[in-house]
Amino acid sequence: MKKLIKKRKFVRQRSKKSGLPPGTLVYVGEKKVEQVRISFIDYDEQNIQEKQVSKIEECFPLKATPTVSWINIDGLHEVEILEKLGKQFELHSLMLEDILNTDQRPKHEDFDKHIFIVLKMLSFDEQSQTVESEQISLVLGENFVISFQERIGDVFEHIRERIRNAKGRVRKMGSDYLMYALLDAIVDNYFGILEKLGDKIEAMEEELVGNPSEKTLKQIHYLKREMIYLRRSVWPLRELISGMERSESSLIKESTDAYLRDLYDHTIQVIDTVESFRDMVSGMLDTYLSSISNRMNSVMKVLTIIATIFIPLTFVAGIYGMNFENMPELKWRLGYPAVWLIMIIIAGVMVIYFKRKKWL
Amino acid sequence: MKKLIKKRKFVRQRSKKSGLPPGTLVYVGEKKVEQVRISFIDYDEQNIQEKQVSKIEECFPLKATPTVSWINIDGLHEVEILEKLGKQFELHSLMLEDILNTDQRPKHEDFDKHIFIVLKMLSFDEQSQTVESEQISLVLGENFVISFQERIGDVFEHIRERIRNAKGRVRKMGSDYLMYALLDAIVDNYFGILEKLGDKIEAMEEELVGNPSEKTLKQIHYLKREMIYLRRSVWPLRELISGMERSESSLIKESTDAYLRDLYDHTIQVIDTVESFRDMVSGMLDTYLSSISNRMNSVMKVLTIIATIFIPLTFVAGIYGMNFENMPELKWRLGYPAVWLIMIIIAGVMVIYFKRKKWL
Amino acid sequence: MKKLIKKRKFVRQRSKKSGLPPGTLVYVGEKKVEQVRISFIDYDEQNIQEKQVSKIEECFPLKATPTVSWINIDGLHEVEILEKLGKQFELHSLMLEDILNTDQRPKHEDFDKHIFIVLKMLSFDEQSQTVESEQISLVLGENFVISFQERIGDVFEHIRERIRNAKGRVRKMGSDYLMYALLDAIVDNYFGILEKLGDKIEAMEEELVGNPSEKTLKQIHYLKREMIYLRRSVWPLRELISGMERSESSLIKESTDAYLRDLYDHTIQVIDTVESFRDMVSGMLDTYLSSISNRMNSVMKVLTIIATIFIPLTFVAGIYGMNFENMPELKWRLGYPAVWLIMIIIAGVMVIYFKRKKWL
Amino acid sequence: MKKLIKKRKFVRQRSKKSGLPPGTLVYVGEKKVEQVRISFIDYDEQNIQEKQVSKIEECFPLKATPTVSWINIDGLHEVEILEKLGKQFELHSLMLEDILNTDQRPKHEDFDKHIFIVLKMLSFDEQSQTVESEQISLVLGENFVISFQERIGDVFEHIRERIRNAKGRVRKMGSDYLMYALLDAIVDNYFGILEKLGDKIEAMEEELVGNPSEKTLKQIHYLKREMIYLRRSVWPLRELISGMERSESSLIKESTDAYLRDLYDHTIQVIDTVESFRDMVSGMLDTYLSSISNRMNSVMKVLTIIATIFIPLTFVAGIYGMNFENMPELKWRLGYPAVWLIMIIIAGVMVIYFKRKKWL
Amino acid sequence: MKKLIKKRKFVRQRSKKSGLPPGTLVYVGEKKVEQVRISFIDYDEQNIQEKQVSKIEECFPLKATPTVSWINIDGLHEVEILEKLGKQFELHSLMLEDILNTDQRPKHEDFDKHIFIVLKMLSFDEQSQTVESEQISLVLGENFVISFQERIGDVFEHIRERIRNAKGRVRKMGSDYLMYALLDAIVDNYFGILEKLGDKIEAMEEELVGNPSEKTLKQIHYLKREMIYLRRSVWPLRELISGMERSESSLIKESTDAYLRDLYDHTIQVIDTVESFRDMVSGMLDTYLSSISNRMNSVMKVLTIIATIFIPLTFVAGIYGMNFENMPELKWRLGYPAVWLIMIIIAGVMVIYFKRKKWL
Repeated sequence: MKKLIKKRKFVRQRSKKSGLPPGTLVYVGEKKVEQVRISFIDYDEQNIQEKQVSKIEECFPLKATPTVSWINIDGLHEVEILEKLGKQFELHSLMLEDILNTDQRPKHEDFDKHIFIVLKMLSFDEQSQTVESEQISLVLGENFVISFQERIGDVFEHIRERIRNAKGRVRKMGSDYLMYALLDAIVDNYFGILEKLGDKIEAMEEELVGNPSEKTLKQIHYLKREMIYLRRSVWPLRELISGMERSESSLIKESTDAYLRDLYDHTIQVIDTVESFRDMVSGMLDTYLSSISNRMNSVMKVLTIIATIFIPLTFVAGIYGMNFENMPELKWRLGYPAVWLIMIIIAGVMVIYFKRKKWL
Repeated sequence: MKKLIKKRKFVRQRSKKSGLPPGTLVYVGEKKVEQVRISFIDYDEQNIQEKQVSKIEECFPLKATPTVSWINIDGLHEVEILEKLGKQFELHSLMLEDILNTDQRPKHEDFDKHIFIVLKMLSFDEQSQTVESEQISLVLGENFVISFQERIGDVFEHIRERIRNAKGRVRKMGSDYLMYALLDAIVDNYFGILEKLGDKIEAMEEELVGNPSEKTLKQIHYLKREMIYLRRSVWPLRELISGMERSESSLIKESTDAYLRDLYDHTIQVIDTVESFRDMVSGMLDTYLSSISNRMNSVMKVLTIIATIFIPLTFVAGIYGMNFENMPELKWRLGYPAVWLIMIIIAGVMVIYFKRKKWL
Repeated sequence: MKKLIKKRKFVRQRSKKSGLPPGTLVYVGEKKVEQVRISFIDYDEQNIQEKQVSKIEECFPLKATPTVSWINIDGLHEVEILEKLGKQFELHSLMLEDILNTDQRPKHEDFDKHIFIVLKMLSFDEQSQTVESEQISLVLGENFVISFQERIGDVFEHIRERIRNAKGRVRKMGSDYLMYALLDAIVDNYFGILEKLGDKIEAMEEELVGNPSEKTLKQIHYLKREMIYLRRSVWPLRELISGMERSESSLIKESTDAYLRDLYDHTIQVIDTVESFRDMVSGMLDTYLSSISNRMNSVMKVLTIIATIFIPLTFVAGIYGMNFENMPELKWRLGYPAVWLIMIIIAGVMVIYFKRKKWL
Repeated sequence: MKKLIKKRKFVRQRSKKSGLPPGTLVYVGEKKVEQVRISFIDYDEQNIQEKQVSKIEECFPLKATPTVSWINIDGLHEVEILEKLGKQFELHSLMLEDILNTDQRPKHEDFDKHIFIVLKMLSFDEQSQTVESEQISLVLGENFVISFQERIGDVFEHIRERIRNAKGRVRKMGSDYLMYALLDAIVDNYFGILEKLGDKIEAMEEELVGNPSEKTLKQIHYLKREMIYLRRSVWPLRELISGMERSESSLIKESTDAYLRDLYDHTIQVIDTVESFRDMVSGMLDTYLSSISNRMNSVMKVLTIIATIFIPLTFVAGIYGMNFENMPELKWRLGYPAVWLIMIIIAGVMVIYFKRKKWL
Repeated sequence: MKKLIKKRKFVRQRSKKSGLPPGTLVYVGEKKVEQVRISFIDYDEQNIQEKQVSKIEECFPLKATPTVSWINIDGLHEVEILEKLGKQFELHSLMLEDILNTDQRPKHEDFDKHIFIVLKMLSFDEQSQTVESEQISLVLGENFVISFQERIGDVFEHIRERIRNAKGRVRKMGSDYLMYALLDAIVDNYFGILEKLGDKIEAMEEELVGNPSEKTLKQIHYLKREMIYLRRSVWPLRELISGMERSESSLIKESTDAYLRDLYDHTIQVIDTVESFRDMVSGMLDTYLSSISNRMNSVMKVLTIIATIFIPLTFVAGIYGMNFENMPELKWRLGYPAVWLIMIIIAGVMVIYFKRKKWL
């Protein structure tokens, strides 16, 4: 539990930066890869070149070529790489700053020569059963897309495959379509996450109704936080994509519009599902409380039945345990069986009373 | 219960598709019919032709005719049928993809030559007492309407009857009116579902106030989910129909506008009713908790009354059960009746106290 | 209770109609009058004619006259009357359909030659202490107003009186003012209903704080439903009247605008009050739960005090009720009084402890 | 409590009026002053005249003068005064009606020659510790302001003083500034009310955490109602003042705009504070419930500790109180001390168990 | 606790002012510095002059110079300083009034020659673990920025450093950039506060699930208030900054727009985080209640187990403690062991029953 709560920090240590002039490049996240990995794919309809490079300078020639270039950078802790890249590709200093702030709110921004998008890529860690999040920044330029990731590993493998094998539309279209394809892969991936969370919620609901425990409470609590986090990652996407749709930048061609609209619909659906999940999770606590109350009720009933039957009987036994010299009943021949009879009657009346009240 | 929860999946297995290029046709639902069934009705004011065909190609000539053609396809798992149809009728690939994604959010989309609508058809399964849902996609073109359903059986039988018998307005008007008629049938059907849910809610409420049990809790829970689901199916309709009303597409004639407005009012009413039901269902849990508390309270009272009367009496009996040699009361002639008197007085005082507190 | 719940149906049996072509006239409510009653008042500044007619055809000449005519129809189950009327006054078929659907959402609609309004008239049944609702449809035409009611008896008697006696402005102004006057009478009547509900809420609140019982819970429940229903009847009025204000129809003269604005303010006030009542009623359940908790708490305290004092004392008595041969205390001369002393001390300590904890 | 609830009526007896033609003047409030008091102040930069008059006719000449005239009327039950005034100053009949309906929602209305404002003046009655409310209506005309109050006594004394002593801007500016000054005085006064309510809330919160009682519950309940009422009085102000700002009436000069904007900010602040208070008060009930639960918990613990220690001990004593002839322990020399030892051990184990569970 | 609640006053003593003409300068806060401290920095790209002055008049020449001047005033209780400053720099009287009202709602206002901004600077007092708030007012003029603070000490030290050392962009740009830099420093500082509150919330959550106590309840309560306050400080910032962005004042140059947009994003992020925290804190109370219920449940179980096992056993012992002359069992040789056997069987059955119910 502790680990989980630690992970889902809502504010990262921005304080590292506070006081620095705006536009100063400082990486505020934790270092998640040993070594920054830079790679690119450069393609047009006929040709394709794919390469992993050790120095960022090797990517600089790509700016001039008319082919579509996709530069991918895994790891953000080497600030000078960004600085060089920013200089070469004329990226705005505030954009670079946003790339390094890994707790950025998903957003879309139009700069003169670029469109800048930052959003969250989610993955489900099967081992710890938690949703992990990584910030992805995408810069769309005339003939290139640059993607920045916090760590190695992403949801883009299928796109790379399609580019390599010239499958689908991607090789025929421009950098804006590549951008769309990357966004689509990220949003599509959300559905997988939601499916897994949905399964968890269902499992929890059955447990809740069947056999709620204190662990359940913790898990509801954890799911609630997860939902708050998911919501924060997902809601701004709506604005982001509709912003891109309405964008007047010449970087997005008209032919891509239908795809963006489709992406928008998917986003709305993701949001809808997150909201439904939130509704369900928040209903769970009420159900949990009801279950606890129900159970307390049944505990109370057992106590009440036992106590209510035996306390009067014990009293009767107490009476004839008194040592008065003058207690005529004690000398009656049938005194003892009579007492038993009385006790059985009392107990019987009680049982009938409880049956009527439906406690038994 | 298990079955119900399973059925109401909020995300279907989109993951089947993740990684494929956008526009790839993959059916993500479960196969719900053995064999895809294709049929069409082709009519104008004078003539009518109705036919069930085995090959989709048989429908292709309908595109050219000036008569209104309604092609209906039950079952979506044979993707090649859609591909052929899409080619012939020039349907956009994203539209075809949406038809196959059976967890689509209800929406309306204007394409150049078509209006595309996807929404949910609900039915109430009397046996399992649950609301079942099926995705319906409608494509409106110049002289045709194509409808796609997940399985055989729908709410359109009355419309077919009217077309066959030339009853009502439908034979005199164009494909846009047919489209409206289909939508109207679906929305009208919602009222029937709501009536049945309303009856269930009322039955539940009476049970809740009269005799709540743990089963009631489960049912409230189930109704809550049902409401979340209904809401998701119904809310987007508002936007959908108002989108059609405001649409500038030439496919919708002005004469149909009044009908769409009427349909819009019905939709608002459906939404209103769903919201009222939601309010009621969410109030139920509170009532349930209050009922439980009330009951616990009455259990506690019984326990308290019995314990409070008999514990002191037992104590008194205990006193005179002690074996001290020197206990003068034990030797009094009237000791025993005196103790009885004391006990009756104690019990009487208690009873009066409880009467005052209105516990009896 | 049962009766109440039955009455406040949120969906009437629309299913009667499902499958019929749109515009088909079927009355979906219950028959509330034996015989449809048709009457009219025809007036201008100088003359007035008032008559109850047996055949709807008698009203047809009124269409041509330049005087203001108010035709009132009580009872909707004779569909042919509506059909004839609709033909003569050129009413749109969808409008007629709405008049017959007595669970219509309040709305305003502009047709070419008419303004159509449908809303709820409420009344408070003193005997059953419930709010009753009836649908009123109003059609405003060039020189006439037609009103449709489900049953005999309405809130318009004062208006009729004013027309007869030429009191107020009504005789001098056109049909649009008459329409406004009818709406005003209906909205004014809402205030009376709200006053009565307000009294009920206040009475309930005092009961709640003073002496809540299980009956109170049922009544809160009932009030909640009533509020949900009221809200549904009242909220759309806002849109309805502002729609009329903004209407570009030539049927509403400019001089009536100030009156409509005033009516709008009243409607807002009705809505505000309903919302305040809702807030209060929804707060009641919390208060109820608190009261129950409070009471349970005080029950528990009594139990705890009695048990905590007497259980240890009984234990002490039990000790000296043992039959060991070698129990020196039993033979002491002051053993018995000493035990009493010990017991009194124990009880005293307990009492002081409870006093400190403020349980006594 | 009763008194409070009676006072805060949400609907006054409008029913007195129901059925009368719109525009009929009937006072629906209670008579709050013996005698209507009419007074005026007439001033320009050089001169000032202040007078209390017995007949409304004495104010009529003020209409013609170019000086600014402020006519104030305390008491609304003499309808004929309003009628005369309305005739002379050409006030719209609906405006007069609104003045007399003392449960009017705060609003601003532009008439041809007047601006009409109605709002609530609040005061805090120190004795009963409640917020009292009075309706104020203000009519702004070319050279005059007429104010209508329900009773004598207001928050305008400072403004009168400033006019008399020619302090501040008021003597130099027109009737619109006077109007603003009156509104400002009323809104400023809200801050005083809020301060007092804030103090009450704080006092309550400390009581709540320290020592909640059933009285606290009643007070929370009362504060909640007070908040509902305050909100209703305050929220419409926002619209009211922004309506005045945007008004195109020539009655409000441009120089007054900055003041109105300032007033608007104050209003927003009042609303913000009311919302914060509402949040706090609604949180109180939860805290109250938690406190009750906490307390019940500690009561239960005491009961459980006592019962759990002594019930087994009493059982042991009961064993050796049995009268079997053949009970060897009874004859042992150390039987009695051994039993004591056993009992002490049992009690000790229990105490350790409770310590571990942190119940002690 | 008391101290905290006192500090977070939602309405300061405006009543000091009530009745004074609008625009009258009265300081409504508490005096927070002994002596008002006035200082300025005057700079352009080449030169810089920094000075602490004793008389406000020393700053007056700065108005005429073309260099950027930043005048900072710590302490607001000497009203005449403001009056002189206002005269010299032509500040609107309402602006001065707002500067002195230290419970102003954050806002942006365009005056002819100035842009006026008022907002809250927060700081976290490590000792008392509370968020402290101070009002900052900023006036932007042609070549100057004037900042007003309630007390000495602020978050601007880094900016001063940058100006002194000509680091960053600030020395090259105009007064509007300085204004932006100040705002940025304040908003950046919010992140630090949020980090600390986030840590507190996390610590609390672990405590809540692990070991909730009555202190926890108080702290939740306190955090809730803190959130209400934070929200009030932060929400209006959104409007404030977007207002500046959309401002048509010539004081804000186009080059500053990108920075303002960036600032806007930060503000949205602060708001998002505050909302997430609010969600978490409000969920805490539910969790707390669940924990309490859980605990009560386990207390009840212990009581029930002990009572249910021993009460019947004690009854059995009571039976054979009766003194009837004719009780054959007492004389049986194996009577005593037989009773023990019976008791062990009863206890065993009970234990098995509890095991089945999972109470053990």
